[in-house]
Amino acid sequence: MSKYWSPLTAALEPYIPGEQPKDKKYIKLNTNENPYPPSPNAMAAMADAINEDLRLYPDPNCESLVVALATRHGLQPNQIFVGNGSDEILAFAFASFFDPSKPVLFPDISYSFYKVYAKFYGITPKLIPLDEQFNIKVEEYVGEHGGIIIPNPNAPTAILISLENIKQLLEQNPEQVVIVDEAYIDFGGQSAVVLVDSYPNLLVIQTLSKSRSLAGLRVGFAFGSAELIEGLNRTKNSFNSYTLDRVALAGAVASIEDETYFVEMNAKVIATRERVVKQLEELHFLVTPSAANFVFISHRSIPAKQLFEQLRAEGVLVRYFDSPRIDNFLRVSIGTDEEMDAFVTALQKLTVQ
Amino acid sequence: MSKYWSPLTAALEPYIPGEQPKDKKYIKLNTNENPYPPSPNAMAAMADAINEDLRLYPDPNCESLVVALATRHGLQPNQIFVGNGSDEILAFAFASFFDPSKPVLFPDISYSFYKVYAKFYGITPKLIPLDEQFNIKVEEYVGEHGGIIIPNPNAPTAILISLENIKQLLEQNPEQVVIVDEAYIDFGGQSAVVLVDSYPNLLVIQTLSKSRSLAGLRVGFAFGSAELIEGLNRTKNSFNSYTLDRVALAGAVASIEDETYFVEMNAKVIATRERVVKQLEELHFLVTPSAANFVFISHRSIPAKQLFEQLRAEGVLVRYFDSPRIDNFLRVSIGTDEEMDAFVTALQKLTVQ
Repeated sequence: MSKYWSPLTAALEPYIPGEQPKDKKYIKLNTNENPYPPSPNAMAAMADAINEDLRLYPDPNCESLVVALATRHGLQPNQIFVGNGSDEILAFAFASFFDPSKPVLFPDISYSFYKVYAKFYGITPKLIPLDEQFNIKVEEYVGEHGGIIIPNPNAPTAILISLENIKQLLEQNPEQVVIVDEAYIDFGGQSAVVLVDSYPNLLVIQTLSKSRSLAGLRVGFAFGSAELIEGLNRTKNSFNSYTLDRVALAGAVASIEDETYFVEMNAKVIATRERVVKQLEELHFLVTPSAANFVFISHRSIPAKQLFEQLRAEGVLVRYFDSPRIDNFLRVSIGTDEEMDAFVTALQKLTVQ
Repeated sequence: MSKYWSPLTAALEPYIPGEQPKDKKYIKLNTNENPYPPSPNAMAAMADAINEDLRLYPDPNCESLVVALATRHGLQPNQIFVGNGSDEILAFAFASFFDPSKPVLFPDISYSFYKVYAKFYGITPKLIPLDEQFNIKVEEYVGEHGGIIIPNPNAPTAILISLENIKQLLEQNPEQVVIVDEAYIDFGGQSAVVLVDSYPNLLVIQTLSKSRSLAGLRVGFAFGSAELIEGLNRTKNSFNSYTLDRVALAGAVASIEDETYFVEMNAKVIATRERVVKQLEELHFLVTPSAANFVFISHRSIPAKQLFEQLRAEGVLVRYFDSPRIDNFLRVSIGTDEEMDAFVTALQKLTVQ
C-alpha cells in the first residue's frame, strides 16, 4: 500500500495469470496454449512486416485485419473491433456497455478476470450459480441488471451452451448487452457470430491465442452491431489509439486468411482430446463434456490438489483452482499426442494402486 | 449514441490521432515519427522472435525488457514498468495515481490526450496557463490538487524545462504524484530519470516511438519508485496482463541495448532541426526553442491555417491545431534532410512574395 495510490488502485484485486515456470522444463498443460505452431503464412507475413516502416505508427483502425475478418464472416467492417488480446477487449467492453449503477450477471464459475474488471469499473457482479452438472442456467439471467457476460464454452468447465440458449439470453434481455466470450469456440462449438445481424445487443469476443496458436502475439477481436462497435471504439480512443503493432497486424491478417491450416490444427486438437477423455474415464476420472482445448476432470477418490502437486513433481503442469465448488477439479490443456501420453502415463502411476 | 452505451462511454470525447493519409504520397511531417529506420539489431531480434514459441503467452512481467532498462539507467527492476506504448502507460497512470475527488493539474497547452484520460476516469482537469512565451509556470503548480502531469519537452510547443524546475515541482508537491511525460526527451533534454531514486512521487514516462524509430511497435516504459511501479502493475493486472507481444519485447530489448545507433540517429535529427530552424527564421517564422524532433512555428504575416492547407496541396503534411492560443502555429516533425529541404522550398514559394 502506498499513499500515492488512488483509492481505486488501492482497492483493486488484480488477476493472477497462470504460472510460466522458469525453473525446469515441464510438460505445460496449464495455460490452454495450442501445442501446434502458428500458420506458416502468418509467420511469413510477420517476417515481411519487419522493415523500415516500423518507424511509422500502425493503422489505428487496423483496417486490414477488420476487412479480413469481415470477409471471413460475411459481416460489414463496422461490425468488427480488434484489440490487444481478448482481455483488452473485455476491459473495453465492461467500460462501454455495463452501467455501474446496476449489477452485471455472470456464472459463479467462469473466467476469473470478470470479477477483476467489475472491481476496476466499480461494477457489482451478480453471480448466477451453474447447476449441479456445471451447466449455465439460462433462464436465471433475467431481472433488473446492467448486462450479461458468459464464456462459451465456459472456462474452466469446458461445457458449451447451444445457439438456442444464446438466443434465449438475447431475447430475455433486449435492453442489455449480452457478451459471449468465445475464446475456445473453435474447438467444437458453433459461434454466435451468425446472430450478430439479428441481435443489436450481442457482442461476441474471440482471440488468436487458442485456436490460432498465437498467444504470443496478443490479438483479439469482437463482432457486434455497428452501435456496439462504435461504443468500443469510443472507449479505445479514450485509452490507447494504437493497440496493435505492425507485426501483429500482419500476422493476424495472414492467420485469419489461412483457413486450411486452421481447420487442420483444430481437428488434431479435438481428436487428441476425444482420445484422452476415454483414457481419463478409464482411470476413474469424471470428465465434463468438453468443447474446448482443455478438459476439466475430477478423480473418483484422489483429491485434485494432491494430484496437481504429484503431477508437478512428475514434470507435468496443470491448473488447480482453490475455489468453492471446483476445488476437487483439475483443468488440463490438450497438448500434442506425445505430451498427453506422458500425462496419462503419469496419472496411471499416481491413480492405479 | 446508442441505448447500449454506458453513461461513461456516452460522455467520452475520444482522442483523434494525427492523419495517416492513404490518398497519395505525402512528405509526412505531421505525427512526429522518426525519419530513420529502427536499429538493425532490433529488426534482427524481432526476426528471431518469429518462431513456434509464438503459440505461447509472452512473459507478462516483460522481465527481459525491464532488466535491459534497469541496466541502462542504473535502476532496480522494481523501479521500471513497461507497456503497450506510452499512451497505455499514461492511461494506467491516470487510474493509479490521480484521485478523482481532486483536480489534476497540467498545462493549458500540452498533449491533448490528457483531457481525454481525465474524462475517462471522471477526473477534473485544472489547466495551468503557459506564460506568453509558452513556458511552463512551475510556481503555479501548487495548492489542493490530486496530481500533476507535464510533458517535457512540452508538446506541441517543443519547449524544455530544466531538471531544477522538475525538482521544484516535486518538492512543492510531496504528497502528490508528478508525472513527467518524456516522449521527446532524447532530442536535447536531460531526463528526470536521474531523480527517481530521490523522489518517491516522481513517475517518468518514455517511449520507443520517437527517438528509437519504433512507433510501429507500440512499446513505452516508466521509471519511478517501487511503490509507484507496484501501483501501475496493480492497475495493469486488473485490465490486461499481457500487453506486450513476444516480437515487440524482443525488438525493444535489442533497441535499448543498441546505444551507439541511438546516439548517432538522434544527433542526425538534432543537426537537421538546428539547420532548419535557421532557415525558418530567415523566412520570417517565429520558432519556439525546440528540444524535440519537431518545431513549433508561426509566420509573421501568413495565417497558419492557410499555410497548413497550402503545404498539403504541395504534398507536405504538417499538424495544425485549431485551439486557443496556438491556432496561428504549425507543428512540423523533423524529417530527413531531403524532406526538410522540400518543406523549406515549399515554404519559400508560399511565403516569399
